Amino acid sequence: MAEQFDVVVIGAGPGGYVAAIRAAQLGLKVACVDRRAALGGTCLNVGCIPSKALLDSSELFVQAKSHLGQHGITVGDVKLDLPALMARKENLVKGLTSGIAGLFRKHKITFVHGAARLAGKGDEGHEISVKGGESGKEKTSLRAKNVLLATGSEPIRLSALPFDGSSIVSSTEALAFDKVPAHLIVVGGGSIGLELGSVWNRLGAKVTVVEALPRIVPQADAETGELLHKSLVKQGLAFHLETRVQSASTQGGQVIVNANSRGKDILLQGDKVLVSVGRRPHTAGLGLQEAGVQVDEKSGRIIIREGWETSVPGIYAIGDVIEGPMLAHKAEDEGVAVAERLAGRKTHVNYDAIPSSIYTWPEVASVGRTEEEVKERGREYRVGRFPFLANGRARCLGDTEGQVKVIADAATDRVLGVHIIGPRASELIAECVAVMEYAGSAEDIARICHGHPTLSEVVREAALAVDRRALHI
Amino acid sequence: MAEQFDVVVIGAGPGGYVAAIRAAQLGLKVACVDRRAALGGTCLNVGCIPSKALLDSSELFVQAKSHLGQHGITVGDVKLDLPALMARKENLVKGLTSGIAGLFRKHKITFVHGAARLAGKGDEGHEISVKGGESGKEKTSLRAKNVLLATGSEPIRLSALPFDGSSIVSSTEALAFDKVPAHLIVVGGGSIGLELGSVWNRLGAKVTVVEALPRIVPQADAETGELLHKSLVKQGLAFHLETRVQSASTQGGQVIVNANSRGKDILLQGDKVLVSVGRRPHTAGLGLQEAGVQVDEKSGRIIIREGWETSVPGIYAIGDVIEGPMLAHKAEDEGVAVAERLAGRKTHVNYDAIPSSIYTWPEVASVGRTEEEVKERGREYRVGRFPFLANGRARCLGDTEGQVKVIADAATDRVLGVHIIGPRASELIAECVAVMEYAGSAEDIARICHGHPTLSEVVREAALAVDRRALHI
Repeated sequence: MAEQFDVVVIGAGPGGYVAAIRAAQLGLKVACVDRRAALGGTCLNVGCIPSKALLDSSELFVQAKSHLGQHGITVGDVKLDLPALMARKENLVKGLTSGIAGLFRKHKITFVHGAARLAGKGDEGHEISVKGGESGKEKTSLRAKNVLLATGSEPIRLSALPFDGSSIVSSTEALAFDKVPAHLIVVGGGSIGLELGSVWNRLGAKVTVVEALPRIVPQADAETGELLHKSLVKQGLAFHLETRVQSASTQGGQVIVNANSRGKDILLQGDKVLVSVGRRPHTAGLGLQEAGVQVDEKSGRIIIREGWETSVPGIYAIGDVIEGPMLAHKAEDEGVAVAERLAGRKTHVNYDAIPSSIYTWPEVASVGRTEEEVKERGREYRVGRFPFLANGRARCLGDTEGQVKVIADAATDRVLGVHIIGPRASELIAECVAVMEYAGSAEDIARICHGHPTLSEVVREAALAVDRRALHI
Repeated sequence: MAEQFDVVVIGAGPGGYVAAIRAAQLGLKVACVDRRAALGGTCLNVGCIPSKALLDSSELFVQAKSHLGQHGITVGDVKLDLPALMARKENLVKGLTSGIAGLFRKHKITFVHGAARLAGKGDEGHEISVKGGESGKEKTSLRAKNVLLATGSEPIRLSALPFDGSSIVSSTEALAFDKVPAHLIVVGGGSIGLELGSVWNRLGAKVTVVEALPRIVPQADAETGELLHKSLVKQGLAFHLETRVQSASTQGGQVIVNANSRGKDILLQGDKVLVSVGRRPHTAGLGLQEAGVQVDEKSGRIIIREGWETSVPGIYAIGDVIEGPMLAHKAEDEGVAVAERLAGRKTHVNYDAIPSSIYTWPEVASVGRTEEEVKERGREYRVGRFPFLANGRARCLGDTEGQVKVIADAATDRVLGVHIIGPRASELIAECVAVMEYAGSAEDIARICHGHPTLSEVVREAALAVDRRALHI
């Protein structure tokens, strides 16, 4: 007999596990299924968290080597103990994933380790069969009134560069190289490639980024992306834009990559190739077709209607498997919203005020529309910019690169987008998200008191600059 | 003949110089007078900026000595070059003060170096005489329709511990010790004493803090202050609370301080004593009495009416010389508001949403009311707390100490105060200030999308905790 639940969540990533917790908080009986034994999905196990651990550690390595001197701090030989750095990362991941296991126990959420499949609908609800356990063969059956699909995404594969798990790899393996590559070739200049490229560049690798489009981070505000590009070049990363990989061969631990760069054939040789050309929804094996869950053929994303419900009543989907940016916090908010709906509440997610960050150095963080998007819509707008170089706290920290850019409606002054490149950008954006949630204006930001000396003063000055009245420039 | 201005600003600190710039932006003819040749007042020359420079450098020193190992980074002998550290600080100050001089040139603001005095009112406006220049004797006369008093504050002197400029000193000298004291006695456990005590503790001094009240940072939220206290004790600072200094004597470079500690006489001996028991309005020599500008006898603060106008029409006052917290950004906002009024605009400052920060480690940042203040007003309230220890980004950074505390009205859920102790608190508070400006609720913060992984998620979780529905604890 299948155990009966109010909701079975398939996928224990940030979207799924948060939905499970929220649903349990609201009194629902919840099960959560994941192929991984560890909770937290891609984000905690092989995504945001381990990459940030490596980014933070490698930033300190660069600081120790190059930046302490200006503060009057002299250190002897700075050496890297890569296994220790990796062990720290793994401990962090273990601590956080087991923390979620603790939350599941606290909220009496049943966790089932295995691969879930929609197995039909009876009078009592949807049937879900789970193949799993240590053997991968044990079968469990669950039944639930509602099912939430939160299975996330997986790296896109390039046929010209098939993953081999050692030399040609995805981000998962690039988070755990056992030595610093001599030359890491990163295929794809999006946030994942740039973050991991930064990590290994800081730790001593030569890093070359290959991007098919004419610019890196193509979804970002162009001006901001250009500033990031320049900064990364200064840090030693090499870039080939408008360059497409044609084929690759591996020989004696070396990968030879043939690519076409702006019409010319080029050849790159490195010991590691990271393919980070994007992610695609992870829906294989879920039995979507048999269950009648509609999927967008082109993107592979599950189609939802209002309330995140799929074409099958009682089956919902959130996160990377549906439309929208593939961001952990977007999935989390959707997870909370669906859980609350299942408990009878009315909820929504404001897709116009979802921030996104790139944890390079300097960090990049954005919310709202890019200047290109605003222009495209034909809306009259004004832009204010302010550099961190003119900010006291940034100077004290010695982190003066970057700027804040505020885009506001020319007629109403409403903030349409904020794009930050600079120190602690991922935290500074929070204020801007709040203002956008209140449909606030650039003048609002300018009139809000900002502590001195803080980096957040740069946000205010950029807002003042919208009206051409920045005070400190 | 005195040169005629629309407004003469007395004092070139953050309040004064910002007022001068804003007035000039609005087309007024502006002069600004200061006793210091360098612009920026206490804040830039001997306050916020140099202290933050020392705090940031000394934090890196501690990090290099004690925290790099856990990241797999090994360094040889870590040594301090104090003159280089101090030179960096001085260069920073020079860069920023000369930056303001550049802004004055850009805005065609006349800067007069010297001591200003109100010298009567004629038909053309107020007369201001300035004694100054290199000799301190040259006299300039200025005339203006409006005068803005922005002369700031100075350290309070203790008769039991008279400043001697070398052993018993104010914060000014403690920013520039030429060697690390063996034992620094800090009299006064407010933000200035704790920041400078932290600096010298990190650089190797034994530091003992003496505070007359039963707690440090008495104006802060008590629970938050207690967490800071515990953290500083763990870092090696010693505290004597409810302890009053009675007398002191200096002998052979050592200061013997006699104090009464909870009824018992104690004796402290150190090579440096920092007296940081507060600041008082700096109004001496301005000729206030003769001009008829009313001053509150007890506090020494200039009395203002609506619009920051003193008892004398056309004479305004802002910043540390009037009521309210002695904070650079409070003065700045008042400066902007007065400048705009003089240009015929309507302005206000929202004194309920002015953040304040203490740049210790962890940082402390607050906005709105403390729990004690809320309780005192008899308002029903709810409190939500969330620890940084349960946050992924904090763990990646290795900075997990502290918490966010959100206080909300029990009936309306409106945010009444937020108190943060933890990493980057001074930046995290910006979001909370924005929400308070919009009279937002804890639920608002909880519903606003927060990027993952960021420290700002702790703010959201604390807001969720107000309603007992934090997700990650």
